[in-house]
Amino acid sequence: MFLDTPLFRCDALGHALGCAVSIKLETANPVRSFKARGTELVAGRLSDQGRTAAVCASAGNLGWALGWSGRRRGLDVTVVASRRAPAAKLDRIRALGAALELVDGDFEMARERAAGIAQRDGVRLVEDSLDIETCEGAATIGLELAPRASSFDAVLIALGGGAMATGVGYVMKALAPGVEVICVQPHGAPAMTRSWHERRVIATDSTDTIADGVAGRHPIPAVLDDLLKVADDAVLVQEASIVAAMRMLLEHAGLVVEPSAALGVAAVMEDPDRFAGRHLLTIICGSNVDLDDYHRWIRPCPQDPGAAETNH
Amino acid sequence: MFLDTPLFRCDALGHALGCAVSIKLETANPVRSFKARGTELVAGRLSDQGRTAAVCASAGNLGWALGWSGRRRGLDVTVVASRRAPAAKLDRIRALGAALELVDGDFEMARERAAGIAQRDGVRLVEDSLDIETCEGAATIGLELAPRASSFDAVLIALGGGAMATGVGYVMKALAPGVEVICVQPHGAPAMTRSWHERRVIATDSTDTIADGVAGRHPIPAVLDDLLKVADDAVLVQEASIVAAMRMLLEHAGLVVEPSAALGVAAVMEDPDRFAGRHLLTIICGSNVDLDDYHRWIRPCPQDPGAAETNH
Repeated sequence: MFLDTPLFRCDALGHALGCAVSIKLETANPVRSFKARGTELVAGRLSDQGRTAAVCASAGNLGWALGWSGRRRGLDVTVVASRRAPAAKLDRIRALGAALELVDGDFEMARERAAGIAQRDGVRLVEDSLDIETCEGAATIGLELAPRASSFDAVLIALGGGAMATGVGYVMKALAPGVEVICVQPHGAPAMTRSWHERRVIATDSTDTIADGVAGRHPIPAVLDDLLKVADDAVLVQEASIVAAMRMLLEHAGLVVEPSAALGVAAVMEDPDRFAGRHLLTIICGSNVDLDDYHRWIRPCPQDPGAAETNH
Repeated sequence: MFLDTPLFRCDALGHALGCAVSIKLETANPVRSFKARGTELVAGRLSDQGRTAAVCASAGNLGWALGWSGRRRGLDVTVVASRRAPAAKLDRIRALGAALELVDGDFEMARERAAGIAQRDGVRLVEDSLDIETCEGAATIGLELAPRASSFDAVLIALGGGAMATGVGYVMKALAPGVEVICVQPHGAPAMTRSWHERRVIATDSTDTIADGVAGRHPIPAVLDDLLKVADDAVLVQEASIVAAMRMLLEHAGLVVEPSAALGVAAVMEDPDRFAGRHLLTIICGSNVDLDDYHRWIRPCPQDPGAAETNH
């Protein structure tokens, strides 16, 4: 259901970007993101152990995936999310029957709250990027890329908490060390990228990006350690580039993607000389957007000029 | 590359439609439609035989797919299409290096022209729906559905020339005879559906539908014979339903689809009582749309009321 996802070269997108581009598409599944690769592992193990409940903090996609994996196994799932998370994500978590707790702060507040609930109720806390299952789940993407990795020069990976970057990066370094592993984060949520460059944890006070899925402020030290081992580079991109990349993925690949999934293409658009003529693989990690936001970003109506630039 | 495409249940779409809906997604590949399943067979066989050229008439997707399959094997591909075909499709055919001949008439004119070229030049004419490879290619979709078919009550298939309907339908009847095979065509291009109901070929003088991929006027007798054996029903849907179905697939599944790919959902929307509570499988057969058309259909801007209803 979540494995063996499409991997294909998109000539039109490559032509537009001045390089060859292949896509690993992680959105054609019941939760529209790659997160269920990890939650299937977590929930399966919990179920095997006779556990009956789990709690996680989530920007949205992990919660949806854990809710989906938990429902199949009769687990009670609690998801803690920011009240500002996209309604599309929150609605789907509720629809799965998971308990949804909203916090007034951001993702880091949700993390604290989830940890408190886990401690209070004695249930498993699923910590994205820290818990090995979440990284192993993402690593299965890498295992699917590896047989074809000899044709890629670089893999572009959205960087948030780090599960996808470390999971895929680890496999690439083990099985296809010639492939450059490049992590991409928004300037508006740069904590992990700054930490990677400084080789020490650097937290930020706030985030300001439409890429809700990668908007953390407090990098986890153990994840940074892993990222330092497997990433060849970490770059930051502007909000306008994320929007332009979302538009390009729609126009040239026919794909609706959430902002986090456009980070790889945004990185290419910001630094075309670096990537010219190379064969890039980008992971389209999620498609969960509120459509009103999406339309405003992608295609401002004439009476609403500049919406794409100012609205997030 | 074109096989083993995603097959997943979409809860949000099912909830909106009042039934369970699974999707077979045929758009996550280099040509964004299912047609390469057949052209890979055709081009592979031609190449094995030492042939160097092929010609086809196409509404767009077959031409793109044959161009793609031919380029990989060094075949000279000529595609004959209507000048009114979506620019998105024609541009991709040209980009692949195929010779593109445009006729001023519709798809049936393109068919005549392609046959003339084949005869004149002594090259293989690839006739969609008539040539067995095009049906066998589509039948591989059925082979991928069959292992999970026991969970489906019905399969909804876009009906044009009939390759997909007969190919998938044949496998369903052979391996999963309990699954209802329902073909869906627009009221604006009803020739094959009328022919199925009358059990004899009925041609029409014209077509009037945004579903360019299924807009034929002259059913092929041998294809009708096959369709009579494997289809349980053939229904017609309104243009407004096609647009509403495209919108629903975007809103609830995050999928950009071309009109032909929305026919199954349109059929459910037109006859909800028939499908209530059942588990339906619909094949999303293509995503090749001109985005300007798509946006006009999906989300009319306030200054452009009614565009969705009147524009095609």
